[in-house]
Amino acid sequence: MSQFHVLRIGHRPERDKRITTHVALTSRAFGASRMYLSKPDSRVVTTIDEVVAKFGGNFEIEPLSNPRKFAKNWEGQIVHLTMFGLPLEDFEDKLRKEQSPILFIVGAEKVPPWTFEYADYNISIGNQPHSEVSALAISLSRLNENYVDQKFGGPLQVIPSGDHRKMIDTSR
Amino acid sequence: MSQFHVLRIGHRPERDKRITTHVALTSRAFGASRMYLSKPDSRVVTTIDEVVAKFGGNFEIEPLSNPRKFAKNWEGQIVHLTMFGLPLEDFEDKLRKEQSPILFIVGAEKVPPWTFEYADYNISIGNQPHSEVSALAISLSRLNENYVDQKFGGPLQVIPSGDHRKMIDTSR
Repeated sequence: MSQFHVLRIGHRPERDKRITTHVALTSRAFGASRMYLSKPDSRVVTTIDEVVAKFGGNFEIEPLSNPRKFAKNWEGQIVHLTMFGLPLEDFEDKLRKEQSPILFIVGAEKVPPWTFEYADYNISIGNQPHSEVSALAISLSRLNENYVDQKFGGPLQVIPSGDHRKMIDTSR
Repeated sequence: MSQFHVLRIGHRPERDKRITTHVALTSRAFGASRMYLSKPDSRVVTTIDEVVAKFGGNFEIEPLSNPRKFAKNWEGQIVHLTMFGLPLEDFEDKLRKEQSPILFIVGAEKVPPWTFEYADYNISIGNQPHSEVSALAISLSRLNENYVDQKFGGPLQVIPSGDHRKMIDTSR
């Protein structure tokens, strides 16, 4: 299991299904091993399980009913990504050296006060409104600079190309 | 006007409204000056106009009915972001030195063949499936490393904080 975990809070199944799916895919692609999801949403889980079956890796989604209790009991560091936080640049050297598991918390709309309270770091990627998907992608890609070389081992493998789509299916 | 522009293609208003909004917010936050949108969607425009009114900057959305023709006539470089492309790392030094405007093309689902054809660069941010929001955020933040120091000059300004939400409204 990798050192990076993601807690997605404030998920509203009707409204956020696709954004939360992008949060999960981003988590997986940049090296997180698990996304905890509150509220639970089986459609997101199904979509991600299909991607894992095709492209590999051990990424999982775990539904959570009490994210506050989960965060309170987290044994490791907590990084809350928020447009109101301090610049990532000021902490990334320290976070790269961190040995304990890091839980990134990303909210949908306004987050409850406990996210600020339980976080060891409240970190922003710039202080303009943008996207929890962007904040997570930039954070993980900067802390896990070898993301391009990760091996996922799934049956579908992309062959990088400058001019067309090329993908092989090693299960055939 | 900045050097960075974004062309969002394949937008399906019912399905993609929120993801496309995140593409637009990410474009603005990391220094693009304009997003061209096909198909047009006035709800996305309204949401972004509200953010610009509050947080500043000159970012605009321009609806496009013929994105293919638009890309074909683009006077500058075109970077198509795709999971099938070559690593950003191999081209970022060259792109940082580029003087002409750069158009980033991001699709929703599978893109038409002309995107590969008209692109000067087909670039991937890793070759795993993730998100056009992530791909754009990482690309822009790496080519525009001063994004944290950009001045948007809007009435709402965040005061970065390690432990709470702090925002001032300079219009009051």
